[in-house]
Amino acid sequence: MKYIAILGFGVVGCGVAEVIAMNEDRIAKRLGEDLKVKKILDIREFPDSPFADLVTTKQEEVFEDPEISIVVETIGGARVAYEYTKKALSAGKTVVTSNKELVSTHGVELMQLAHAHDCNYIFEASVGGGIPIIRPLHRCLAANKIERIVGIVNGTTNYILTQMGENGSDFDAALKEAQTKGYAEQNPSADIDGIDAQRKIAILSTIAMDGAYVDPTRLFTVGISAITTKDMEYAREMNAYIKLLAVFENGEDGTYAYVAPHLVSKDHPLACANGVFNAIMVTGNALGDAMFYGQGAGKMATASAVVGDIMDAAEHQSRNAHVYEWFESDKPVLDPIEEHRISVLLRFPDSVTDDAISEAFPEISCQPCVYEAEGEKAVILGKDGDLNEAKLAVGLENFENVISVIRIF
Amino acid sequence: MKYIAILGFGVVGCGVAEVIAMNEDRIAKRLGEDLKVKKILDIREFPDSPFADLVTTKQEEVFEDPEISIVVETIGGARVAYEYTKKALSAGKTVVTSNKELVSTHGVELMQLAHAHDCNYIFEASVGGGIPIIRPLHRCLAANKIERIVGIVNGTTNYILTQMGENGSDFDAALKEAQTKGYAEQNPSADIDGIDAQRKIAILSTIAMDGAYVDPTRLFTVGISAITTKDMEYAREMNAYIKLLAVFENGEDGTYAYVAPHLVSKDHPLACANGVFNAIMVTGNALGDAMFYGQGAGKMATASAVVGDIMDAAEHQSRNAHVYEWFESDKPVLDPIEEHRISVLLRFPDSVTDDAISEAFPEISCQPCVYEAEGEKAVILGKDGDLNEAKLAVGLENFENVISVIRIF
Repeated sequence: MKYIAILGFGVVGCGVAEVIAMNEDRIAKRLGEDLKVKKILDIREFPDSPFADLVTTKQEEVFEDPEISIVVETIGGARVAYEYTKKALSAGKTVVTSNKELVSTHGVELMQLAHAHDCNYIFEASVGGGIPIIRPLHRCLAANKIERIVGIVNGTTNYILTQMGENGSDFDAALKEAQTKGYAEQNPSADIDGIDAQRKIAILSTIAMDGAYVDPTRLFTVGISAITTKDMEYAREMNAYIKLLAVFENGEDGTYAYVAPHLVSKDHPLACANGVFNAIMVTGNALGDAMFYGQGAGKMATASAVVGDIMDAAEHQSRNAHVYEWFESDKPVLDPIEEHRISVLLRFPDSVTDDAISEAFPEISCQPCVYEAEGEKAVILGKDGDLNEAKLAVGLENFENVISVIRIF
Repeated sequence: MKYIAILGFGVVGCGVAEVIAMNEDRIAKRLGEDLKVKKILDIREFPDSPFADLVTTKQEEVFEDPEISIVVETIGGARVAYEYTKKALSAGKTVVTSNKELVSTHGVELMQLAHAHDCNYIFEASVGGGIPIIRPLHRCLAANKIERIVGIVNGTTNYILTQMGENGSDFDAALKEAQTKGYAEQNPSADIDGIDAQRKIAILSTIAMDGAYVDPTRLFTVGISAITTKDMEYAREMNAYIKLLAVFENGEDGTYAYVAPHLVSKDHPLACANGVFNAIMVTGNALGDAMFYGQGAGKMATASAVVGDIMDAAEHQSRNAHVYEWFESDKPVLDPIEEHRISVLLRFPDSVTDDAISEAFPEISCQPCVYEAEGEKAVILGKDGDLNEAKLAVGLENFENVISVIRIF
């Protein structure tokens, strides 16, 4: 019998208990022993839950029980979850989590703590929900230098952008609908401002950099709240969608990670991710492109990834497996985002002259957009990689009333 | 220093040596030691290869060298490769392969042999080329009952079908072009008759059935050589592509695996796989749908997966890891394909009457197709799951000149 505990009995925590119950026999057959939730630590009571009798408020029933060898942390946030994760790891218990905030903020310390106590800190469910991405990136693509990761990693913003694109809803209406359907929280800031995507790309970037820690709070990040129905009109005319992309690049031009809305051609495989779906494209120097697609969130999908991690931990427990080893690098892992090369769709009032654009963006390739809305001028800047964020910022200073700037993928 | 040997220095074998050389430093850093190709076993000489001095014709230099702990089998086929794989495993050497024929034919015996000699037989590259699919299916989705796998797993046929759909080429012209470009072999039978896809879905099905062996040679398989430009016309009008799908289903209606051309809606995520690209959609009972997309073949992509396996084997060598354990099941793993429920597009000459169709397919839902080519009658049969292969076969006997039958996904 393999005993585990669940910390935090919210949506995902509850899903973990349910997936284990649902697939009890398969799991036991695979592990060669039963997998059993022994305790659920939460300060709330759940009288109607079939797992009610497992719920406890007493930490020591988890951390001091030598029978519990694996602990699932589904508390969320980086305060209580941080404290409890440290307690569990210090007691030599492997911790499995879906908590991207905690992994992206304190991953280095927690993995080193796990290492010191011969256990593991694993987090497949922290990015892409149920989609296998962390382990494939770390293990299947191990032979590759990862040159690029481009992901639609936040279902809430993708749902809002899909609604805006398909139904012509404006941002506020689409957000409200997402909230009604439970796809967006009442305080949606972490999603719509790109914070969630920032944390996820920081995790993926750190893995791609072989564990050299990428701090999410330092990543250039643009959310989606400025996207308008007019932007969607341009996207349609350009045969593209607007997607919030989380990007990591590690090529000849430098190493960058950032989050921003982009125009993505409808012909690109990433365009298949609509609504709450996620898709992550990874480019390896041997592999070329591979894409992972699926439900990036949701109770059972996320729980499926957590339970996959639990089973992996259970199967490898007798071994001293330090799966992930993150570290603080001596030198900066990323180059300054100002140097990152981009191309953008730029919308101006049509009073702006071509000369004014040439003056503002000297020596930068500029072509008219295939579409211009009434009363507007629209150009695509920087097709040849001659535009970077610094030049874009300086150039934009010369215009009082730029309508919008959207990056092109 | 970790020493490996490569058996068979063809395209993939050469790619393996190249990927190891290309990413030497990364690999060494990850493994904590250098990874070195010590011998390459081949009967040919490669005087112009940078690896020429490693090539030997002497088996004993591989199988009797205790320093060589991992052997890459990239010979292909199931004769010499079979014999050498058994020798390597019997000597306690882990074997890494991309050989779908051998894995799907002798996988049970070879994994049991590996087990008996405390080593592994691993084969990530045997399906999907460089796309991580075997390990994610086995490991990340371990908590799920796998309910369905639907894959475009053969690049050659997908290239031919894409050309036929986009350029209006007929089958022979598209095949010829594929041969010219090196995407199809001079004897293309294994690809176009669906044998390659059959082997791959047998491997995936066995993993999905927790190791209960699925014999590829017993799978219902339809290739693509009967697909015409007229079929493509129907596909276009139905907003669909024709794709050769390898299918595994394990649901309430039974357990099936088969290969056949299908109409796939352009709105379905699988439709993003055009040309030589592969895409595999997996449905788990907790996860829901996840899709894996990428280059399903090619020297460096496939080699990338092989080297990923080598690194995994090297990292886990001190442990007694029986990664895959296949077995012959006492009872049939699959249900008879005759019971499998499908819906199909059926094309007749327009002389066929509605009554004749109703008589031939009694009690089966039937609706006119949105499109009918001149002189033809086209219907969609079996929308409600009331059609199965047996009924389809019996019904078709009543018509002398059915033009074509294409399954609808």
